[in-house]
This record gives sequence, structure tokens and C-alpha cells, in this order.
Amino acid sequence: MTWKLTKSELDNQNLLLNESLLSLGNGYLGVRGNFEEGYEDTYNTIRGTYINAFHDEIEISYGEKLYGFPETQQKILNVIDAQTVQIYFDEELFSLYEGEVLNFERNLHMDAGYAERIVHWKSPKGKEVHISFRRLISFVTRELFALEVKIELLSNVEQVKIVSSVNGDVSNFVDKNDPRVASGHAKRQSVEEIRKDDNYSIIKNRTYATKLEVACVTTSSIGLEDYEYRSNTYDTSVVETYICEGNKAIHFTKYNVYSDTLRHGKEVIEKAIAIQQKLKVATFEELLKEQKKYLNKFWSKSDVIINGDSKLQEGIRFNLYQLLQSVGKDPVSNIAAKGLSGEGYEGHYFWDTEIYMFPVFLMTNPSIAKNLLVHRYSILDSARKRAKEMGHRKGALFPWRTITGPESSAFFPAGTAQYHISADIAYSYIQYYLVTKDEAFLRDYMAEVLFETARLWMDTGHMKNDLFRIDSVTGPDEYSCIVNNNYYTNVMAKHNLLWAARVYNLLKEKDKNYLEQLSERLKLSQLEVDEWSNAGEKMYLPYDEKYKINAQDDSFLQKDRWDLENTPKEKFPLLLNYHPLTLYRYQVCKQADTVLAHFLLEDEQDLDTIENSFNYYEKITTHDSSLSSCVFSVMASKLGYKEKAYEYFRETARLDLENTHGNTKDGLHMANMGGTWLAIVFGFAGLRVKEIGLSLAPFLPDDWESLEFHLQYQDRLIKVIIERNSVTYLLMEGEGLTLSHKGNFIYLEPGKEVKVS
Amino acid sequence: MTWKLTKSELDNQNLLLNESLLSLGNGYLGVRGNFEEGYEDTYNTIRGTYINAFHDEIEISYGEKLYGFPETQQKILNVIDAQTVQIYFDEELFSLYEGEVLNFERNLHMDAGYAERIVHWKSPKGKEVHISFRRLISFVTRELFALEVKIELLSNVEQVKIVSSVNGDVSNFVDKNDPRVASGHAKRQSVEEIRKDDNYSIIKNRTYATKLEVACVTTSSIGLEDYEYRSNTYDTSVVETYICEGNKAIHFTKYNVYSDTLRHGKEVIEKAIAIQQKLKVATFEELLKEQKKYLNKFWSKSDVIINGDSKLQEGIRFNLYQLLQSVGKDPVSNIAAKGLSGEGYEGHYFWDTEIYMFPVFLMTNPSIAKNLLVHRYSILDSARKRAKEMGHRKGALFPWRTITGPESSAFFPAGTAQYHISADIAYSYIQYYLVTKDEAFLRDYMAEVLFETARLWMDTGHMKNDLFRIDSVTGPDEYSCIVNNNYYTNVMAKHNLLWAARVYNLLKEKDKNYLEQLSERLKLSQLEVDEWSNAGEKMYLPYDEKYKINAQDDSFLQKDRWDLENTPKEKFPLLLNYHPLTLYRYQVCKQADTVLAHFLLEDEQDLDTIENSFNYYEKITTHDSSLSSCVFSVMASKLGYKEKAYEYFRETARLDLENTHGNTKDGLHMANMGGTWLAIVFGFAGLRVKEIGLSLAPFLPDDWESLEFHLQYQDRLIKVIIERNSVTYLLMEGEGLTLSHKGNFIYLEPGKEVKVS
Repeated sequence: MTWKLTKSELDNQNLLLNESLLSLGNGYLGVRGNFEEGYEDTYNTIRGTYINAFHDEIEISYGEKLYGFPETQQKILNVIDAQTVQIYFDEELFSLYEGEVLNFERNLHMDAGYAERIVHWKSPKGKEVHISFRRLISFVTRELFALEVKIELLSNVEQVKIVSSVNGDVSNFVDKNDPRVASGHAKRQSVEEIRKDDNYSIIKNRTYATKLEVACVTTSSIGLEDYEYRSNTYDTSVVETYICEGNKAIHFTKYNVYSDTLRHGKEVIEKAIAIQQKLKVATFEELLKEQKKYLNKFWSKSDVIINGDSKLQEGIRFNLYQLLQSVGKDPVSNIAAKGLSGEGYEGHYFWDTEIYMFPVFLMTNPSIAKNLLVHRYSILDSARKRAKEMGHRKGALFPWRTITGPESSAFFPAGTAQYHISADIAYSYIQYYLVTKDEAFLRDYMAEVLFETARLWMDTGHMKNDLFRIDSVTGPDEYSCIVNNNYYTNVMAKHNLLWAARVYNLLKEKDKNYLEQLSERLKLSQLEVDEWSNAGEKMYLPYDEKYKINAQDDSFLQKDRWDLENTPKEKFPLLLNYHPLTLYRYQVCKQADTVLAHFLLEDEQDLDTIENSFNYYEKITTHDSSLSSCVFSVMASKLGYKEKAYEYFRETARLDLENTHGNTKDGLHMANMGGTWLAIVFGFAGLRVKEIGLSLAPFLPDDWESLEFHLQYQDRLIKVIIERNSVTYLLMEGEGLTLSHKGNFIYLEPGKEVKVS
Repeated sequence: MTWKLTKSELDNQNLLLNESLLSLGNGYLGVRGNFEEGYEDTYNTIRGTYINAFHDEIEISYGEKLYGFPETQQKILNVIDAQTVQIYFDEELFSLYEGEVLNFERNLHMDAGYAERIVHWKSPKGKEVHISFRRLISFVTRELFALEVKIELLSNVEQVKIVSSVNGDVSNFVDKNDPRVASGHAKRQSVEEIRKDDNYSIIKNRTYATKLEVACVTTSSIGLEDYEYRSNTYDTSVVETYICEGNKAIHFTKYNVYSDTLRHGKEVIEKAIAIQQKLKVATFEELLKEQKKYLNKFWSKSDVIINGDSKLQEGIRFNLYQLLQSVGKDPVSNIAAKGLSGEGYEGHYFWDTEIYMFPVFLMTNPSIAKNLLVHRYSILDSARKRAKEMGHRKGALFPWRTITGPESSAFFPAGTAQYHISADIAYSYIQYYLVTKDEAFLRDYMAEVLFETARLWMDTGHMKNDLFRIDSVTGPDEYSCIVNNNYYTNVMAKHNLLWAARVYNLLKEKDKNYLEQLSERLKLSQLEVDEWSNAGEKMYLPYDEKYKINAQDDSFLQKDRWDLENTPKEKFPLLLNYHPLTLYRYQVCKQADTVLAHFLLEDEQDLDTIENSFNYYEKITTHDSSLSSCVFSVMASKLGYKEKAYEYFRETARLDLENTHGNTKDGLHMANMGGTWLAIVFGFAGLRVKEIGLSLAPFLPDDWESLEFHLQYQDRLIKVIIERNSVTYLLMEGEGLTLSHKGNFIYLEPGKEVKVS
């Protein structure tokens, strides 16, 4: 089975790509798949180590700065580099760009949680060696990045020298002409403390503006008794050198423990040392073993098995694995748009989390899902503050992109104007409640978030001719910015408003005292809640009589259509080749917008409108965003366009593996990775979670033999197997449950398979 | 009569304001009204000398840079400072912030073209002196800034020392939080050459990026026979020191000649020296005399006489005088938004020229007006290039703000998106043709500009349901950006399109050969011209049936109304206190938009629509732009709202003199100054210029006794005197003419007054 991703390219473009594909992480720490010994001088590389949410703040420059434009922007930092290990054989430095590479292979072991590089090399002077590198970032000890190098000498080598270093002089990658990558401020930290003690290389860096600190405490070992050792401490690096005779196999290990202010408080070095001390006895093999155990548990609930297509099987598994590697599991972190695999979008959290990735965790690993919501709750005060800055009297406006709360978007038409993110967050809270029925969560987190976002909509929209309208916002489609009555935004706001009122009433029933306290704290009255209900019920949802579709916004259908057929291929993505005004002037969509709304809230329209809309928008959507194809796949499945659903799914499943968007070097497209799962489970299997419960409407793509996955639902674990002529449900954990299968209710008894033809 | 503006404040705020109010200029060179000797250390000052169009290019920083955003921005530079003269009386340095000021007065002589500062001062040690400073920037020798200091000793002074310097180490003023002022890049030039020869102090500066050069060649004289002299040349300044005995009155003069690459080619120093040599024999009195002669001629055609209100008389004269001081009179220059009086808007040229200032010159000084249009013609290639960058297949898109052609706007929603500037320029070409009937101009400049702008509209708009629509542009009102079918833009584009076709047909009749050549060069066919006519005729002009007004754009009337009544006073101007998105969300106007369109093209709508629109928009307009009140004044006059017309006029007439917008320190509001004249001549006097000829419909504001002004029209000079019960027309130059007076045609015979009751 496809548990192993193998990449063996040595050219620069592929190496850059593989740095992202073979990146390792655990949601806290991430390291790109760089070569320990480095590359040829002329090669470009993005050598990177990241800690989720570890950032600096930089001033944003504006040619013309208007009121309310954020002054500063957060930015994830590339932190202390501990990857480097250089090896000399009789003074010949090992490099894949010298001598002869007799064999070379890199593997990412997704079942075991490590990456390896196996080299059979002949030096320019003819010395033959076998070297295997293995590395892991522990899922058990989140601070640990462990490296192992095994050397086997196949020729006569007199002396082997290993030079291992840790370097605090690190910078971020910049490209001022790509809006998806940072444009400046590469260097944002300096070495604050550096030393070598008996056991450890110690470096502590401090950021320029936020004054956050990160420490890297490293210990290494050569696994031999006889060797010469020395260490050198420079201004910004510590270098350890091991010299031994060339008569034995060498087993070098390097354990790097990272700690940072956000999780470990002030004493980052002491905390890292304490973690190292706990690890002291663990061999690399033991680390691998506990890694495997963790992953066994993960895959037992999260794996999706496709029989009949190993490439797509590899795709979905890779995507799920990378989601696990990227998702923050502590209260200060979320999932960055590129996970921990690169610096694109500067480590910011977007709506990508709620709409594309959260559902995967919600249905397979609800405690991780909950953490994502709790993180949003932790920035609710920032969102309230931002609402005030934006001129609102009340409510919370979540930032379009942020790490710890402040809006970090420097171009408001496609940033702050995307007010829908506040409804998206509310939506995910509602989904969480539907899936878990977690009443404590509803009370402690959900109520406040829904109330404050509902207030935002009340202050943003207005009633006109007995319809509630929302002007001057941007929907998900960034090729039409600052529009009135974006269908997506309005329908999501409606859901937000009605559920806010609903939660108020639920609390009134279930915990009146708490509601009274909360209402007093928020200065909330029944009158205000009634206005939410009224606005929600009277929400204006644009509908076009001629095409019998929901219009993307008030003016969208009045515009001229972009001539997609005659647009040369090299002009895509359009955003890199046309001025935004040009894009705004036409009917052309970067991504699913109305179609996405029809997925998330399918009961708001009849099936004809949904189908007409799909057909209309499909023709004018470029999928220049990686968040698009998965949604079209889900909706194609719903509408019975099976081949289309499969085609769109294929585009998502291997988007990064095949670098189809051309920028995987800057990091993986995490939302799309979540989208692959959505295309399978919400698409092919037709899953929906509503108040009436779970429903599925599965079909099996023609090319496949079977499809298997698990769902978590209200403390239950359900296995679903879709075969050509039947679907089998098995309730593996939890109490009996009725679910809807293609509109018919079926009852699942614990431990008993139910097979439906 | 009010020919003299007197300002005698000494506090910092007023001094900053007076630097602008008492600035001198001639359209080429401008110097702010700084004190020669400087101020107290703690005072802020914007010490400035500017050459129209002399600029550097700076990189624009964007937090997120999208396709087609300009890489660089032009910026007028504060050039070599020659203002400084310091005076010591027995080693006591003269300063208005030491000792005792017994008398102090500053005057700007608008009839004579110079500024003076008269001081009666007692030094801390009790020495009493009279000092008078006079300065002029010559209208005859544009490169000359001449200074004179007369000193009369009223006490026993043993020694007077005059230290006069020229300083090449100059920077621009920056304020990163005011979008109307530059935010960075203060220092953009370095001293390239500096020396003192027998006659002259010589400094040449070169700009960092454009490599433009400016020279200042200075000569000074103390007008005595006995004195001690020395000069010192430092890295960036030349200092001359005169020491004489305190027994005579002193008459010090300093002539500074500026030259620059744009007008004087490479040899800027040599050219400046040559100009100095020609000036050698001219005394300061002679310079004043020729200045007076020039101004006599100017005022004889341009003066507006208000009998009955000396404050408004001062206002209109000051405004006309400053317009003359600011307007470029050579082919490389135009009128900056702040003239040459300050650095606000970075010396850029906007639509302000065409819509607010050009008409003043057109009707009083057509050769100056023509130069403004020729300047726009000179940047037509830049406008073609910009259209291409913006994704247009054909046509010319004039930059929203520029000096020599490239778009310098860093915020496209309120910059590049203001496509109307291209129609505004076309409009001014058409007005010029109507006023002058200059057929050579039509052929050599107008045809090409109209054709290329017409093409822009064809490629920007599209036909839908047999109406021509223009989406995603911004009209004059920057509180609603990126809208569809802005009435102003559409009606101006219609005019542009129809006139382009018209000019094509005129040329076909009058100069078929030339048209053929031009058509070949532009690849223009009759078919394309027919499309212009068709689009123009079918132009969609939004009209609202409920209010019976022209809607500002497709969605404007759907929005909620801004609650202006309950907005605290300190929240104005709104743009400095609310995020643009908030402003876009409401019906609230920064300035006249539809109302302006009704002024410029009044025959497009019936009077009821115009009146309803005026009443509607007046209620939601903040006049946060200084380009607004004058338009409301003109239209109030047209609609017979006489008191309103007068009130709006009053707001324009003394806007800078009373600093009502609070930012006159950054420079004068030149467009408003033109607007004052519009409010009088197009407003009170009801002037219109159309194909059928001149028409007037005068009335006299209640508070006034009479109003007089002149008009130039097709080589004629017409004097108009409006009194309480009559209007008198006198054709002073040119052939007999029929004009329309309140709808009745009257014939003017040369030299004969026609009085109408």
C-alpha cells in the first residue's frame, strides 16, 4: 500500500518543491526537507524551520495610507537552523554535486512519521560510501526535531569527519513581486544568547519587535568510543566536530529541542534543557517506535482507503498526513495557510481553517477540531477591537489574516473586506455543536462568538424595503471585490444571525443564570436578539429570474463576461497577469463563491437553482485559487455529475505532489488538502451533518473498486465502506444510531455491519 | 482696493500657514514664505523651493503588491535653498524671537508681484533697527528669485554683518499618517558640484533616480563701497559674509537663478550663469517695474471686481493671483494640486487642472490654457502605455496623478480607477476648441487625444441590452469607489465618444489628407468611429424613478444613508476618521459628483432632474474635498438658489486665507481657487460656452453693489459689469458678436456698451 512518498530528483526546481513535500512537522514545529549538507552554490533553496505562531511584527508600508489600515503585520519567522551536518571522508566533503551518485532515494514514511535519504556515493577520489539520513519531528514530544546519520564505508577511508552545526543567523524568504509571498523584512531576529556547555549547544534568538524568544538546545552523539571531538562557538553558530577512524560504521544522532516564549514562558533555554534531559535515554529507534504508535492511532480513525487507484490513494494519504503535521494542537496556534511547510502567506491563519480543514478534524479527531475553535475564541477581543476600528458600534470582526489576532492584511479589498470570515467561524462553531452536542462548549465559547458576530452583521447591514442587505464587502471570490449583497456572505450571515438567536434561546432554557451573566457582561437584551432573528429571516439573497440562479452579488450578472476561451494559458492565474480593476470589471471567478454557499447551506435553495448556478458559475471560474476545485467536486457529486466530480477531485488530490499551481515551493496548499477529504466524504459519500443528524448519499467513482473511511460523531466511531454495489456501515464505538442513507433511515447497532445495496 | 494681503502673526501655526499664503511663484519656480533668518529652534517649518515638474522617482512599497500596481512614484523635490540671510548687529543675531519686536508686518502685493516683511526691532542689548525684506519671483525671467534687504540703523551700531548662504542639503517634508502628504523618501538629491567663483555662488544638485539636475547660481551685493567680504564653500553650502561699519543704511540684494535639466538641458550651470549675466544691470527697482508691467497686463484681463465686500474681493484676487503664480507656462509643466506653494500631493497633476483651473485660463488667457493641453498631449504615449498595462487592447488611460506621465497613484480604488480623468481631459480639449475655434489645434492635438480616449471607453465599457455600460470605475466622489455606471463617468464618456466621432467627421471635411495619415498611424477605421457614435448614443445614464434623480451609480441609492446629523464635528473630514470600506457602505459624498456632471453637461438632463439631484445630493455631501463647494455654488446659481450660491461661494473664496480645511500649511488648494472664479463667472454670471456660442444669465448677490470681470472669446475681449438693476457688456477687442443674455440674443458692437436692465 502507498504509505511511502518517494522523490529522488536532484535538479534545483524539484529540490525546491521537495523541500515542501518532504517537510516534517507536528503542528508545533516544522522543518523543510533540506539537505543536511547543503547544495551546490548556484542552487536556490528555502532552508526553513518554523514554530507555529512564532512571529515578529513588521511595519506595513503603504504608498497611500488611509484610516484603519493596519500599521503592522505579523509574520512567521524562520527560526534557528539545526539541520546542518557535513561529512568529510579523508577531507573530501560529501556532496551530491561532486563525485558520482550511484544510488539516491528520498522517502517520506507517512505510516511511521519520518523522512529518510539514502545515498550510495563515490567521491571524486573514488571513495565509496553508503549514507542514510533519517529525521523526525516527534508527535509525542512536540519540541523535538531528531536527526540520524548512518554511514557505512565501502572503500578504504582513513578518517571520517562530521561537522554538525546550529545556526542562529537566519532570515525569511522574500519575493516582492509575488503577492502570495512576503515582500520584505527578511531578517527579524538576532542571537541573544549562544553557548556550548558539556552536553548541549544552546542558542536563543529574540525577535526585533515582538521580543519573542526561541531557543534551540542540541545534543549530538557519534555512537562510538574512540573519536576526537571539538566544539566552536561563534557569534551566531555553534559547531561540533567529530573525527574518527574509518574502520567502523558510524551512527550519528542529533537531537534538537525547540522552545519558545508563547508556550514555554520566559525561561526558554531552561525549559528546552529540561526536555532534553527527559529524552536522554531515548534511542532514535525508540523515538521511531513511539512515533509509529501515535500514527497507528491516527490512521486507524483518519485513513481513507481507495482501492483501485494508487496515485489517488497516495494523494489523499499525503494530504491527510500533512494536515496532521500542520494543525496546531495548543491554544495559541491554528493552521497556517501553508502549514509549517513554507513561508507563503507568512504563516497566517485564514478562513481556510474553518471551511476547508476544520471539517476533516471535526469528523475524525474532534479534540483537535475543538482546539481550532478555542484559538479563535482566544482572539475574540482582537476581533472586537477591529470591529471598533472599522467604525462598528458593536460586534466582532475577525481578521482576514492573522496569527495572534491583529488584522495582518495590507490590501483591504481582498482582505479586511472579506467580512464573511466572521460568519465562517460562526458556521464552524455550529457544525462543531451539531457533531458533538457539546453543551459546555456551547455555553463557554459558542454563545459569545455567535452573539458578537451576529452583532457585526446587524451593524454592517441595513433594512431596506423590508429586506436585510449587506453592502460593500468581498465574498470568497477575490476577482470581484467590494460588492453589495454577495450571496455567499448574506446567506452565511443569515445562518449566523438565526443561530445566534437560537443559541440565546437554548441557553435561556438550559442555563438561565449563565445567560443572565453573559447578557449583562455583553449588555445584550432580548430586543437585540429579536432583531437578529428578524434580520436573518429577512436576509436578502440575490436571485436572477432570467438565469434562475443566485447572483454572486447585486451587479455581478450585469458585467461583461471574461473571454476565458481566448485567454492564453500563460495568462493564468489571472491575478498575476491582470490588474484587479480589470478582473473586477468582468464576470470571472477565481474560485467557488455562490457554489460554495450552496454546499455549506444547501437547504437555502431548491435543487434547480443549485444546479443552474453550478452550471453557470462553472463556465466562468478559473480555479486560480487552490480552494476551488474541491468545492466543485463536492457539488458535482451532489448534482450527480459523477465524472466531473471525479475530475475535480483528481485536481485536488495531487495538487502539491504534481505542483500544478507552480508555487508549492512556498509551502503546501493546506486548504486544498482538506478539500480532498471534503470531495471524498462530503462529495462521493454525500455526508451532511444537520440538526436532524447524519446523512450520507454515497456513490463510488467508476475507476475505483472500493472506498473506505471512518467518521466520528457524538462519541461514536463509524466505518463506511463503499463498494460497487453496496455500502457497508459499521458502528465501531459508541451507542446505536439512526442515520439517513440516500434519504432512508437506517439503524446502526454497535459492532454490527449494516450493508445496503 | 484690496491688492495687498497683510499677515503679521508670529506663532508657529500661523507661520506655517503663512509660508503657503505668502509663497511666491511664476509657474516655473516657487518659494514658500519662510523667514530669511529662520525661526526659533522649537518651531516647525516647511522651508521650500520648488521647480514645477522637477522630481525624483521613488519606489512605492506595498504590503501586498498586485499586478499593474505602479512600481514607482514621482515626487516634486524641494530644491536648493537660497532664502537664507542672517544679520548681526554688533554680533547680536537678528531674530524675531529675541529682543523686542516694535513693529512687524508682512505683505503680499498682488498688483506688484512681490512680498515684503517690515520689521522694527530692538535687540536684547537695546540696538534699534528697521529692516525691510522684499522678494520676488520674476514673471519676466522665470529662473529668477530675487531678494532685497534694506537696513536702517536707529541706534548706534558699530558693525553690521550679513551672512547669506545657499544650501544644497535639502529634503522634503514627510508625514506618514496623512494620505494627502508624502509618507517617506525625504532626501532624494545630493550636491553634485559646488563652488564659488568671482561673481557667483554655484550649486548643482542631482536627483537619486531620475538623475535630473538643478543649479542655483547666486550673486549678492551690499550696495556699499567699504566693507569686508569673505566667502566659504562647504560640502553642501556656500556662505558669503559681508561686514560693514554701522554708519550707513544698507541695501543688500541677492539674485538667485535656478535652472534645470528639463528646461535647460545638460549645461544647467552654464545656462544659469548666462541668465545672471543678462540680469547684471537690473536693479531691484527695475525688476519690480517689469514685474508690475506684467501684472498690469494680467489684471487688465483677469481681474474680478466685487464692489461691496472687501473680504471676498481679497479672496478672489488672492486666488487668481495664486493661480497665475502656479500655472506652468512651458511644455513640460502643468499645475500641481498645490501649485508651487507646498508639497501636498507631491507636486502631482490631477483632473483638478482640467475641471477647475483650465476654464479660468481658457476664458482669460487662452495661450496659458493651450499650454496645459499641450502638456497633456505630451504624455499621451504614457497614457497609451498605461492603458496596455491595465489590460486594454487600445486607447489611452491618463494617469490619475503624475508629473511627466507615469501613473503615480499608490491606491488604485481612489486613483487609477478614476478613469474619468481621460474624459475630463477630452472635455477640456472640446471646451478649448469651442472657445477658440482653433482648427490647427483640433488637427494637431485634439483629434488624437479624443480618438485615443474614445478607444479607452470602448474597451472599458460593454453593450448590454442595447445600453452601453461602464463597470468598475471610480467617479469623482472618493467615498464610493469601484462602482458600476457612475453617472459622471458615463455622461463624460458619452461626450468624449460623440465628440471623437464628430472630430473625425470634421477632419474628413476639412483636411482629408491629414485624417488619412492619422488614421493610418492609429490604425483607425470608419467602422471604429461608427462604434463610438453608437456607444455614445446608447450610453446608459442611471436614473431613479422614485427620486427622479440621476443615481450616482448603479448601487448608490440602495445603500444606507450616513447619519451626518449625528456625526460629531471632529470626525470630519470623514476620510481621516473612517476606514474606506465604512465610507463605501453608505450614501455619503466627499464632493460633487453627479452635481458636477450636471454643471459640465447640463443639456443631458431636464431641469427637474438637475434640481432634484442637487437637493438630494446636497444633503449627503460633506464637502470634505476642497473641490466641492464651488460646484454646488455654480449649480445653486443655475437653480436660482441665490443665497445658497452665495454661501457656497463664500466657503471657496477664503478657504486658504482662513485655513478652513486645516491643511493649507501643505500648500494652497489650487482647484478650489479656480472654483472661486467658476462660482462667479459660471455661477453668478451664468456663463456657458457651447456650440451655439456664449451665453450668460447673470445675477448679483444681495450683499454686493456690483461685479465686474472680463472674458476672452475667439480673439475678443469682453467686459461684463453686473449691477443691481442692469448688466453691461462691452466688447473691448475683436469683431462684433452675438451672445445670449438670459435666453435673449444681444449683439455686441466693438467699443460700444450694451446695457440690459
